Amino acid sequence: MTQSGAKFPAKMLEQFLAEAFMALEVPAADSQTVAGLMVEADLLGYDTHGSFRLRQYVNRLRDGGNNPVAKVHTAVDRASTAIVDGDNGLGHLAMRHAADQAVAKARESGVGWIGVRNGNHAGPASLYVNMIAEHDMIGIVGAVGSANHVAPFGGLDLLLGTNPLAIAIPAGEKPLFVLDMATTNAAAGKIKVLAQRGEQMPEGWMVDREGNPLTDPTRQSEGLLLPIGGAKGYGLAMAIGLIAGTLNGAAFGKDVVNFTKQTATPTNTGQFVAAISIEAFGPVDAFKSTVDGIFASFCDSTSFPGGSPVRIPGQDRGNVRAEREKNGIPLHPNLVKTLNEIAAELNIQELVTN
Amino acid sequence: MTQSGAKFPAKMLEQFLAEAFMALEVPAADSQTVAGLMVEADLLGYDTHGSFRLRQYVNRLRDGGNNPVAKVHTAVDRASTAIVDGDNGLGHLAMRHAADQAVAKARESGVGWIGVRNGNHAGPASLYVNMIAEHDMIGIVGAVGSANHVAPFGGLDLLLGTNPLAIAIPAGEKPLFVLDMATTNAAAGKIKVLAQRGEQMPEGWMVDREGNPLTDPTRQSEGLLLPIGGAKGYGLAMAIGLIAGTLNGAAFGKDVVNFTKQTATPTNTGQFVAAISIEAFGPVDAFKSTVDGIFASFCDSTSFPGGSPVRIPGQDRGNVRAEREKNGIPLHPNLVKTLNEIAAELNIQELVTN
Repeated sequence: MTQSGAKFPAKMLEQFLAEAFMALEVPAADSQTVAGLMVEADLLGYDTHGSFRLRQYVNRLRDGGNNPVAKVHTAVDRASTAIVDGDNGLGHLAMRHAADQAVAKARESGVGWIGVRNGNHAGPASLYVNMIAEHDMIGIVGAVGSANHVAPFGGLDLLLGTNPLAIAIPAGEKPLFVLDMATTNAAAGKIKVLAQRGEQMPEGWMVDREGNPLTDPTRQSEGLLLPIGGAKGYGLAMAIGLIAGTLNGAAFGKDVVNFTKQTATPTNTGQFVAAISIEAFGPVDAFKSTVDGIFASFCDSTSFPGGSPVRIPGQDRGNVRAEREKNGIPLHPNLVKTLNEIAAELNIQELVTN
Repeated sequence: MTQSGAKFPAKMLEQFLAEAFMALEVPAADSQTVAGLMVEADLLGYDTHGSFRLRQYVNRLRDGGNNPVAKVHTAVDRASTAIVDGDNGLGHLAMRHAADQAVAKARESGVGWIGVRNGNHAGPASLYVNMIAEHDMIGIVGAVGSANHVAPFGGLDLLLGTNPLAIAIPAGEKPLFVLDMATTNAAAGKIKVLAQRGEQMPEGWMVDREGNPLTDPTRQSEGLLLPIGGAKGYGLAMAIGLIAGTLNGAAFGKDVVNFTKQTATPTNTGQFVAAISIEAFGPVDAFKSTVDGIFASFCDSTSFPGGSPVRIPGQDRGNVRAEREKNGIPLHPNLVKTLNEIAAELNIQELVTN
């Protein structure tokens, strides 16, 4: 077992995660759904948003912050919009339902815009835009971050999350375009990973309350994450918060619950999931072929002296997925240790290295 | 007349702009519409996107790049989506039509998503999200920039514009939230203004083709504008380009025409205009009152030591507008000079300082 971690087959990891949820009274079908999506995040290389999050989900289910037997349902319904109520279940359940609804409405009317309330952390937003893109639609997802790590521009009080935005756009022969970005220079998950690995943050990710650079990830709680582009990233995070949270009757601003620390409190997390049907705007094949040409012209363009070739966002995810599907998902030793502590707590079988 | 410029009544400026368009064969009603929206941009303080742009619009109409007698029409129509074809007219005409359509469709189905093709530069995107917000809806506008000033992340070739994004969200007692941002650290218009004023750019706005900071705005053509957040701003600009351009059959990437330099060539500019009806998600009054509370908690929060109070994006636009409506719109002497050169060329009455 190397320092970079042993590798685990996707199916084994998925079964392990499902067992953990079932041990916490989540029904088998929901456990399998969430475990499958967590492993999908791992397969795609979103290492901070897959099985890495089991510790947080388990703590919340254990302490009563999450409802294990949630009944996800549509609370408000219009021709092209809806609000999905996640009933405070594991966040993946409401988001998968919202993505299905967005696709169904977009098929009928050209666009579907679904809000989520009473949701929870749902892994990387890209999981859901990917589902939409499979239907030859453009997917857009925004979310209120699951804790406030960001201050308003020019301020010190933590009133904003990293409020991520994901967009997937189908190509033809070329890989899917997938943007999945926090509105801060660094996502909170990346800082958690550095802390777990005992590594330092680069300057620019965080400042302390005097404005000095903060580079020790274990001191995250003493500082502020910085938004991209200063006032612009602040404005974008705020707009996403109002549309993913407030519009849907979900929490945003000072009402946001820290889902890691307040493990007994429902978060009322808000998200939105939008699908735009390409077919409603013109022939799908023509669109995809134009996109292929644009991607080719970008990738063939001149790169900075001595730099790497220009990339399209998300272009390597498919390769990462294929490699991990074949050779297994690498997990850092500290993560394996945490997962096996959970196994002991829940009295389920440990993850074993082949 | 001070260095910061004389002030001109909105009505006088609007009449001047309309006369200029009419002298270039634009019908009176369309001339008034565009002039009104340009002055609205000036009133709101978008100094780089109002009458400042007359020189470019005049050159394009004069040289045949724009169609003065455009018939804006709906080219593709679905229940909640449409493509508006601007017929290569002044860009404001298609965008106003698209905003009207987005509102009408959102009223019926909850959301309306309108693409624009064969459009042109249309002033600040905020003009159109503001129109949507007047109907108690959330407005979202994205556009392919009217020239490529940006390279893909890690690249040198100018394949991207500043591709702006605007979002307006209605409040109750508080001012409207309006984000109107380029996806670059600086908008191209701001650099044009500095060049006109003989001032320097701060570091971080541009680099030259070796990666060195570029601060002389007259050397803009030698360098690259930098996206916000590096790869994130690049991905966002690209997503906006694909959705505002490619999806609508409009130009994006290497096909983008430089609307300032290629004055005889149609640009096929693409934009999108989306409206989300608040009423489709819940009671409008409750939403507005929650938004007011959030804005208050942000504005009352602790600011950085020695810094200004926290602001909500767009909060001062209403005050700027009221002041300029009362006291006139300040125009820099160089802009007045340009406008009066145009007056001489078109044989219309000059702008005169009171």
